[in-house]
Amino acid sequence: MSTDRSNQSIPSGVTMVIFSGELDKMLAAFIIATGAASMDMEVNMFFTFWGVNALRKDAPETLVKKKTLIEAMFGWMMPKGPGKLKLSKMEMGGLGRMLLKKEMKKKSVTSLEELIEAAKELNVNITVCTMSMDIMGIREEELIDGIEYGGVASFLDSADRCKTTLFI
Amino acid sequence: MSTDRSNQSIPSGVTMVIFSGELDKMLAAFIIATGAASMDMEVNMFFTFWGVNALRKDAPETLVKKKTLIEAMFGWMMPKGPGKLKLSKMEMGGLGRMLLKKEMKKKSVTSLEELIEAAKELNVNITVCTMSMDIMGIREEELIDGIEYGGVASFLDSADRCKTTLFI
Amino acid sequence: MSTDRSNQSIPSGVTMVIFSGELDKMLAAFIIATGAASMDMEVNMFFTFWGVNALRKDAPETLVKKKTLIEAMFGWMMPKGPGKLKLSKMEMGGLGRMLLKKEMKKKSVTSLEELIEAAKELNVNITVCTMSMDIMGIREEELIDGIEYGGVASFLDSADRCKTTLFI
Repeated sequence: MSTDRSNQSIPSGVTMVIFSGELDKMLAAFIIATGAASMDMEVNMFFTFWGVNALRKDAPETLVKKKTLIEAMFGWMMPKGPGKLKLSKMEMGGLGRMLLKKEMKKKSVTSLEELIEAAKELNVNITVCTMSMDIMGIREEELIDGIEYGGVASFLDSADRCKTTLFI
Repeated sequence: MSTDRSNQSIPSGVTMVIFSGELDKMLAAFIIATGAASMDMEVNMFFTFWGVNALRKDAPETLVKKKTLIEAMFGWMMPKGPGKLKLSKMEMGGLGRMLLKKEMKKKSVTSLEELIEAAKELNVNITVCTMSMDIMGIREEELIDGIEYGGVASFLDSADRCKTTLFI
Repeated sequence: MSTDRSNQSIPSGVTMVIFSGELDKMLAAFIIATGAASMDMEVNMFFTFWGVNALRKDAPETLVKKKTLIEAMFGWMMPKGPGKLKLSKMEMGGLGRMLLKKEMKKKSVTSLEELIEAAKELNVNITVCTMSMDIMGIREEELIDGIEYGGVASFLDSADRCKTTLFI
């Protein structure tokens, strides 16, 4: 499937920093990711800062007790998982987001949850920045399965190999 | 004009995703676009989500009647065209934007409207994401002339060809 | 130190547009910059629009008198230097920023001020967009030492040479 790529001097691929973690930007990122992966390109997504919230799942109750007060506050105030992300604009207290999701469903546009699943099946690499996790007090048990953990060096390795690099 | 570029192993060019659609980010995008095009580089701009609003013009009255209620709401609430875009910060209810435009005029900095015109004359390619148009209910008649329509595949083709890729 | 890089067909490096100038985005940018520079990559950062504020220092009193009213207003309202930058989200009137800095200190994460110093020592090139300075009325005396001044052409030259290009 990917043999004709060997003719090119530089292997093509997409490396993205997922920083903002808003619903609309996340949709754009995963549409690019799944599109590129289905065109047989290497895709590496590095989740950092607010972006990490998009990968959160329901954490066990006992975990909260291990956190400091500030860590628990961060965890409580930041959106938990793709279903809770806000829009970067026109959020209007949740109305904008509700309308966007409604229109997407009506017009058969794939939801963010489905896009994340599709990305995993298409072997998109998802790496979470351990420094961000450390600062915000997010533990591995709070994040979805099938992801990797790394730092800026892994990002730079990947970015230097891929022609397309985006900060989203 | 561009013959000395043939020595390089990879053709140079700029591919941008125009996502946010705010006045200040749009100015940055079009300054880069016109700068690159005048240096004889290939420039491809992909307008998606809120970015599409920067390409809206006055639409015929009859069009509004064809829209659903939600589509009409989106159309009414989102800025229509470059003159209506807000700043990403220091908007202050329109005051920041007014002051910025005033200073730009005073200091002979090209306006966004003029930059868009210049971009077209310099053969900058403007492609609008059809999925975004579909979700927000924006029709071709509502957008300026001389633009193309496409999806993520056209973006990836272009990004893979260009050394500079930006998400704005 | 950098001789083995000559084997690669394209010199690797990182070119960034620093547009937003928020504390969290600035941290991400300088973590990437110092990481890349310590891996012996060329790093060029182009500060434009709100990003310029991160490079402001205490300016001499006499300077303010040379400014027009609008320029003085911009200078007064925009954050002055890395210590005054806000977060792109969860700012909560300064509380979020305070908590973030507290957690960073507690967990021994390098502060933005230290990252900027480290970047300079690692020969990261910092260029400020003169057009932005002109529009906002910012003078060279107001910015930190050891930086360069340029326009879109310097950015494009750099971006065309580097594999990694980001708009932050």
